[in-house]
Amino acid sequence: MPSYTAPVKDMQFLLHNVLQISGADIPGYGDLDDSFTGAVLEEAAKVASGILAPLNSVGDREGCVLQNGVVRTPTGFKAAFDTLKQGGWTALDCDPEYGGQGLPYLMGTAVGEMFVSANMAFNMYQGLTHGAYSAIHVHGSPDQKARYLPKMVSCDWTGTMNLTEPHCGTDLGLMRTKAEPQADGSYLITGQKIFISAGDHDMADNIIHLVLAKAPGGGEGTKGISLFIVPKVLVNDDGSLGARNAVTVGKIEDKMGIHGNATCVMNYDGATGWLLGDLHKGMRAMFTMMNEARLGVGLQGYAQAEAAYQNALIYAKDRLQGRAVTGAENPSGPADPLIVHPDIRRNLMEQKSFVEGARALTFWAASLIDRSVRMGDEAAEGLVSLMIPVIKGFQTDKGFEMAVAAQQVYGGHGYIEEWGMSQFARDARIAMIYEGANGVQALDLVGRKLAQDGGKHVMAFFEMVKAECKLHDGDDRMKGFADPLKAASKQLQQAAMFFMQAGMKNPNAALAGSYDFMHLMGHVCMGLMWTRMAKAAYTALDAGASDRDFLDAKIATGRFYMARQLPACGMHLARIETGAEPVMALSPEAF
Amino acid sequence: MPSYTAPVKDMQFLLHNVLQISGADIPGYGDLDDSFTGAVLEEAAKVASGILAPLNSVGDREGCVLQNGVVRTPTGFKAAFDTLKQGGWTALDCDPEYGGQGLPYLMGTAVGEMFVSANMAFNMYQGLTHGAYSAIHVHGSPDQKARYLPKMVSCDWTGTMNLTEPHCGTDLGLMRTKAEPQADGSYLITGQKIFISAGDHDMADNIIHLVLAKAPGGGEGTKGISLFIVPKVLVNDDGSLGARNAVTVGKIEDKMGIHGNATCVMNYDGATGWLLGDLHKGMRAMFTMMNEARLGVGLQGYAQAEAAYQNALIYAKDRLQGRAVTGAENPSGPADPLIVHPDIRRNLMEQKSFVEGARALTFWAASLIDRSVRMGDEAAEGLVSLMIPVIKGFQTDKGFEMAVAAQQVYGGHGYIEEWGMSQFARDARIAMIYEGANGVQALDLVGRKLAQDGGKHVMAFFEMVKAECKLHDGDDRMKGFADPLKAASKQLQQAAMFFMQAGMKNPNAALAGSYDFMHLMGHVCMGLMWTRMAKAAYTALDAGASDRDFLDAKIATGRFYMARQLPACGMHLARIETGAEPVMALSPEAF
Repeated sequence: MPSYTAPVKDMQFLLHNVLQISGADIPGYGDLDDSFTGAVLEEAAKVASGILAPLNSVGDREGCVLQNGVVRTPTGFKAAFDTLKQGGWTALDCDPEYGGQGLPYLMGTAVGEMFVSANMAFNMYQGLTHGAYSAIHVHGSPDQKARYLPKMVSCDWTGTMNLTEPHCGTDLGLMRTKAEPQADGSYLITGQKIFISAGDHDMADNIIHLVLAKAPGGGEGTKGISLFIVPKVLVNDDGSLGARNAVTVGKIEDKMGIHGNATCVMNYDGATGWLLGDLHKGMRAMFTMMNEARLGVGLQGYAQAEAAYQNALIYAKDRLQGRAVTGAENPSGPADPLIVHPDIRRNLMEQKSFVEGARALTFWAASLIDRSVRMGDEAAEGLVSLMIPVIKGFQTDKGFEMAVAAQQVYGGHGYIEEWGMSQFARDARIAMIYEGANGVQALDLVGRKLAQDGGKHVMAFFEMVKAECKLHDGDDRMKGFADPLKAASKQLQQAAMFFMQAGMKNPNAALAGSYDFMHLMGHVCMGLMWTRMAKAAYTALDAGASDRDFLDAKIATGRFYMARQLPACGMHLARIETGAEPVMALSPEAF
Repeated sequence: MPSYTAPVKDMQFLLHNVLQISGADIPGYGDLDDSFTGAVLEEAAKVASGILAPLNSVGDREGCVLQNGVVRTPTGFKAAFDTLKQGGWTALDCDPEYGGQGLPYLMGTAVGEMFVSANMAFNMYQGLTHGAYSAIHVHGSPDQKARYLPKMVSCDWTGTMNLTEPHCGTDLGLMRTKAEPQADGSYLITGQKIFISAGDHDMADNIIHLVLAKAPGGGEGTKGISLFIVPKVLVNDDGSLGARNAVTVGKIEDKMGIHGNATCVMNYDGATGWLLGDLHKGMRAMFTMMNEARLGVGLQGYAQAEAAYQNALIYAKDRLQGRAVTGAENPSGPADPLIVHPDIRRNLMEQKSFVEGARALTFWAASLIDRSVRMGDEAAEGLVSLMIPVIKGFQTDKGFEMAVAAQQVYGGHGYIEEWGMSQFARDARIAMIYEGANGVQALDLVGRKLAQDGGKHVMAFFEMVKAECKLHDGDDRMKGFADPLKAASKQLQQAAMFFMQAGMKNPNAALAGSYDFMHLMGHVCMGLMWTRMAKAAYTALDAGASDRDFLDAKIATGRFYMARQLPACGMHLARIETGAEPVMALSPEAF
């Protein structure tokens, strides 16, 4: 069975050496000194490794079962969920007014990574709750907040998001679920929603469904959509639980992965709901939490790769097979460990350099969200909005690819479920699809975010990269970072320029290259992160840090990424510059 | 449930327009005129679509079950296997002396693609039998051939290959299975073999296991290994079945995919076996069939991608979601079909252009095997040996990637097992692992095949590409093919040159780039195939062919590959030229 060890040291390095959070001017960051974050992370690590990780394969094997209308979670899930609640882990970055601990989003992100690496399907129960909590926190009336939030912060009640219907996923304008206004101000909700993660289960007393539906008078398409709170069990004014609402589970989907999470078809048969936020502004309310939700999915991408990588590394050191081409390295044994072979080493380095880069990018974006939310910093908000589709799309594509690469290290054993490597790949696969399929992320990036606010956020990003490179001018040690970063950034700018010029005449010329642009920008972001990490490592080394091996390894891992992965940028640019023609040449009938 | 339609027209185009087989000088090819191959392919297509494809999801869902020591295959498998046998499909390219139809290997390959696309797990029962048949055909004594081959050609008896043991896969020198010589010339085989595809089942009267084991006196490592015939049921001299041999199924593995095929742990407890071929030359005997076996796995890669692509295309034309950015294309409907969106189109074109290119490469390689086997052509043998690791490694990597891409077109539905797209990806995954994991293919290519026979095969390959480009000098229509092919081939040569120079000093410098080289060469092979296909299409158009839409689409698909996929070559070269240092910088302890 796979194991998991939380990368506390890597996280501490990011928080304190790279992001230097305790010196940052973001409210709440001042308390985050090295020993405090270390203590939080060490405690979270125990929960992740000791409680959640051992249940990962149990969840995969048993899955969730629908019995007499009730969803049963896998053995051990409820006890683990109780432990999580009792430890306050569900409340980490929630509002203290409702029982939260008020820590920055960044800390929630770091702890979240551990829980996702240890058990992605399990962590979704609280992850979805957090999303619903945020929506009510931002858009709810005082009564709604008082009624629902304390129980959601503690995860006594969990939450869901209901968007998709059988005939509409990305195109929510086609939605058919109806909301009928009642005399008392409530609505009756009728319709079917599908792919509802954590739609029902046996670990909480109530489930607060947030449901998109069409109320009369809103007009066509997405304009007519509103957001409703539809509790599984109605909540009385005194906070006690009342009657069962008219919402039932139609079935649990049989999925490729995340079997431990119940993905439900939900039937609303005149269920009572209450408007959350403004009438006919449901899309806007739903997408308030989009940055956080998509960052969370981007995190799932590399968190699965991290767990898979850890096990591939153990196997590569353990499994004896063949001899090093440069001479036996384990002469007293029957063969050398796999890790002596250059192609195994290449594979492991690809995994390691991706995971560490993606973690840096995710943590940095989380700090930008803190800066935006806690300080109202619009530049930070604009920058993170620009990067969210990259973080979601690039990191989940690569995260899956790396989980598959880790599986490959095991040879035939990687294909056998008992060894657990298949699960990492199967679980990671969903992150490329949900919360906006990756093609939609690319469309959001190129069709919307690039030009947002007159293009000022992407210009700011280019300026930031340029400034980073300039910082290392003449520093020979940093040449292997700053030079490739500068070149890659130029290629990214050239691609953006191509979109501006060709896209003016034919929008397809830009959209046909959108996926490549997302990946090109992903590599530039990773290059930026590795440049910052290398600099932080050199700075620590110069200051006489004791953990020299760790810092040397950090620099070597970054050099691998810059040398071996940034060359993808030129390929993406070349593809982009072929424009729409090769892509659109065939008519649909000619396929 | 997914459907499958055999691409008969595409295959006919390859056989007659591109390979021009009926005019080729290979014995047996003269009979393969357009109407004959068309008739064979149309009949095979009916079996594939009508009988095998509907059982694909059944096999995935039910899997194989071990009951009282006997493996039960999924519902309908036995009846379908009988149909296959009765139609003579298992005997297509087998020796007429033993009941085969004696058709060229190329025809077996074309039919094989259909069966693999329709039901990969099912087709492995006869695929493994074919491999065992070939080994006995080449290395068996007259008595062994007479005793086993007729029943194996008809698939009344099936076959297996037993190499792997729990502690050794790639490194067979670590093998522990023993063969103890008996007075009557037989051997007693004792040991455990794992990952034995089709190791046991209920569709044949007997199973002929080919088992690698160590007989006394052979020395250390792979030198001591011999190959043995170990029937499940002993065969009397009159051909009737005798006593049950001491071989049993330990368990069936629970795998990520190909559930319909029983992957068995086989226990040999003093089972009676007979030496096949020479004592202590078992590795050589086993690897006689390696080219065919690895070509077969490379075929599985694109065959799964083909099946997945067909369904993604149907879904993309069917599913209404969003509007074309250039204006509604289905204005009377609630939305436009997915296929109007440029990024969906990009995705489909990547799938289509890969599958058609890989089919061309595989068919060409199959014709080289025919040329080698039927004419003793050493140049053809050398060339196909060079290309086999590329066909196996590149095509299975890309085949899986494309199956995943096809799954992505379905959005959330792609993740739900009911829709069948997950199975294509899960089944395709194994092809990257078995029959030599893809990292081992890369090692075989760079560490062995490049330098084989003084490098003359790779030089011949470069000359062939050069000649192909020269052929189209001054042909404006072919510029979009010949120019990128020439550039890519130069990059491949530059990479080979780098290996020669850097690898002399440090073999790791070559091996660290082996995986990239395999992919770089894969793209060059695809470019060569697309150039030939485009030329064949133009030639047919110029001759006034009636199916102009088909030929135009062929050219447009090729242009896409050249423009959008060949830029990967530059990336691979850049990675290769960074050498060993970035890959090997970290010591195993520093990971």
